[in-house]
Amino acid sequence: MAMDAGDESICAVVTPEAIAAAAARIADVLHPTPLLPVPVLRERLGRPVYVKPECLQRTGSFKIRGAMNRLAQLSAAERKAGVVAFSSGNHAQGVAEAARLLGIAATIVMPADAPAIKIERTRRAGAEVVLYDRDAESREEKAAAIAAERGAVLVPSYDDPMIITGQGTVGHEIAEEALARDILPGTVLFPIGGGGLAGGSAVALKDRFPEAMLYGVEPAGHDDAARSLRLGRREEGSDPARSSLCDGLLAPRPGRLTFPLLHRYLEAGLTVDDEEIRRAMRFALEELKLVLEPSGAVTLAALLAGRPRTLRGAVILVLSGGNVDPALLARISAER
Amino acid sequence: MAMDAGDESICAVVTPEAIAAAAARIADVLHPTPLLPVPVLRERLGRPVYVKPECLQRTGSFKIRGAMNRLAQLSAAERKAGVVAFSSGNHAQGVAEAARLLGIAATIVMPADAPAIKIERTRRAGAEVVLYDRDAESREEKAAAIAAERGAVLVPSYDDPMIITGQGTVGHEIAEEALARDILPGTVLFPIGGGGLAGGSAVALKDRFPEAMLYGVEPAGHDDAARSLRLGRREEGSDPARSSLCDGLLAPRPGRLTFPLLHRYLEAGLTVDDEEIRRAMRFALEELKLVLEPSGAVTLAALLAGRPRTLRGAVILVLSGGNVDPALLARISAER
Repeated sequence: MAMDAGDESICAVVTPEAIAAAAARIADVLHPTPLLPVPVLRERLGRPVYVKPECLQRTGSFKIRGAMNRLAQLSAAERKAGVVAFSSGNHAQGVAEAARLLGIAATIVMPADAPAIKIERTRRAGAEVVLYDRDAESREEKAAAIAAERGAVLVPSYDDPMIITGQGTVGHEIAEEALARDILPGTVLFPIGGGGLAGGSAVALKDRFPEAMLYGVEPAGHDDAARSLRLGRREEGSDPARSSLCDGLLAPRPGRLTFPLLHRYLEAGLTVDDEEIRRAMRFALEELKLVLEPSGAVTLAALLAGRPRTLRGAVILVLSGGNVDPALLARISAER
Repeated sequence: MAMDAGDESICAVVTPEAIAAAAARIADVLHPTPLLPVPVLRERLGRPVYVKPECLQRTGSFKIRGAMNRLAQLSAAERKAGVVAFSSGNHAQGVAEAARLLGIAATIVMPADAPAIKIERTRRAGAEVVLYDRDAESREEKAAAIAAERGAVLVPSYDDPMIITGQGTVGHEIAEEALARDILPGTVLFPIGGGGLAGGSAVALKDRFPEAMLYGVEPAGHDDAARSLRLGRREEGSDPARSSLCDGLLAPRPGRLTFPLLHRYLEAGLTVDDEEIRRAMRFALEELKLVLEPSGAVTLAALLAGRPRTLRGAVILVLSGGNVDPALLARISAER
C-alpha cells in the first residue's frame, strides 16, 4: 500500500486495562523493577532524573515481560506443543525462561553470530537453540518451518498484541510508582527496536500522564522509527552497511502493530552513535553502578548528549537490558 | 583492660527508635535502596534470596547514611567550623557529599595510595583532600591536628553513636520492606569493617525479626570481628603481611562502640578469600548487572562459597558499595 501506517485496530486491544491485567498476570514470577533516582543528573540538569533499570529484571532485560504475558495465555493444547521464537538475544532468553517457568518446551532460532553469552543463557534456560546463518538464511522461514513441523506456536518479538501488552507493564510500573511517590514524568525516553516496549508503555503512561513527552531512541544509521514518525508511515531506515553496537535495536522498520501506537503517542525519534553509547555504558558503570548492554544504554546516551533539546518535568530513562558481552564490558570499563 | 568487650552503654543509645528517627532525618536527600530478588540464587538454594544494593546509594556506598545523620545534627556553630574525617575511601566520599549537601566545609585525610577514583570523587564533592603516607604517618593524628587547628568536628568512620545509628538505616529499610512485602528474613549477611553497618542494622533487624540469624563477613587474614565474636572480646585479627582486595574492610579490630552490638546480635563471623571475592564480583556483573567493589561483594562471595553452612528463611545479602577501580573491574569482567 502507498501509505502504510500499520494496523490501527491495535489501539483498541492494547489498552491501559489490558496492560494492568498483564501486570497482574506476570506478577507471580516477575518482580517490578525499581525507579531509581540519579542525583548526579538531577544536579546537572536542574530537574529530577530517574532510571527504570530493566537490566535488573529476570533474564537481564524487559523482554521476558511480553513473553510471559503471551505464554501464560496459551491453551493447554498449545502448551503441550511448545513454542518457537527467533531472536538475536534478549527475546530468546525471555521466551526460553518464560517457557521453563511454565513447563513449556521452547525452540529458539538464533543467528550463529549472536553474542556468546546470549546463546549460552538461552540454552541454560532449557531451550533448544537452532542456529542459522544471518547472511544465507531467513530466520522467519526457519522458525515458521519448525513451528509447522511441531505444531508449535510462534512467539513474535514485538508484532503481537500480547507481547506489546506485556512490554507495556514497564510503562504501567513507572506510572504506578510515579503516582505513589509524587513524581511527575515530563520526559520519558525508550529504546526502540521493533517498538513493543515503547508502544505498550506509551499507552500506560499517556493514560495517567497525558502531558508527558515520550521519545524513542535508536542507533544512528538505523533510525527507521524516527524517519517513520516524521513521515507518518512505516519506513525502512537501516543502512545495512553501517554497523552498530546495538544488536537488539536493528529491526528494519517499525512493526505493523507497534507503529500505530508509536505514531499516536511519541513526540519523535532520537538517535545516538556508538561513541555516545560507549560513554553512556561507562557512565552507568561508574555513576549508576549498573551494567548495561549497548541497546540498553541508548536512552542514557541521548540524555548525556543533550537530546531531546527541551526537557520538562521529571526525566525518566528506560534502560532496557544488561546482557553485554563480558569482553566488551571489560574494554569499556578500561576506557577513560 | 584484660577483657575488653567495649562500651556496653551504646546499647541504650542505638535503639530501633533512634534508627527510625535517623531514617526520617536523612530521607530528604537519601532515597531508600531497593531490596532486589535474585531468582537464580533462589532456584539454586531453594529459598528466597534478596540483595540490598548499597552500591545504588548516593556516592556508591552506604557510608553517606551515617555521615548525613551525624552532620545533620551539628550545631550552627559547628557547621560553620566545618568537619574533618580520615578514610581510605567510601567514608571520605560520604562525609564530603553530606557536607556539600548541607553547605558545610569538609577536609578529608586520605592515604596517598587510595584508589584514584575515590580520591577524585571526594574532591569532586567539594572537599579538601589532604593525603598522608600510610607507612610513615598516623592518619588519626593528622586528622586530629587539622580538627584542633580549625576548630572543626572530627567525624569518625564507625565508632560514634550517630554514625552507627545512621548506618543502621540499612537494616531499618530491610525490615520495613520485608514487613511490607511479607518476606521473612532468616539469614542476613553484612560486610564488617569497623562494624557500624552490621552493628546498627542488627539493632533494627533484630527488633522486628528476632529469629533472624545475622553474620558478618570479612576478608581472610583480616578476620578480627570473627575472632572477637568467638572470644567475646575485642581482638586484633589482621595479618598486616596479608594483602586483600578489600581496602574498605581492613579495620584492625572491632570498635569500642560497635563491638557490644555485634557481640549481642551476630551469630558469628565468616571469611572469604580474594578469589571468592573476584568470583562474586563477576557474578554480580553477569547475573545481577550490578557493579560491586571488593568490600561490597564479600557477602555474596560467602553465600556462593556455601557460608554459612545452614541457612534459614529468606537470605538477605547487604552489598555495601560499588566504587571499584575501573581497571580492576575491567580485569574481572575479562576473566572467565
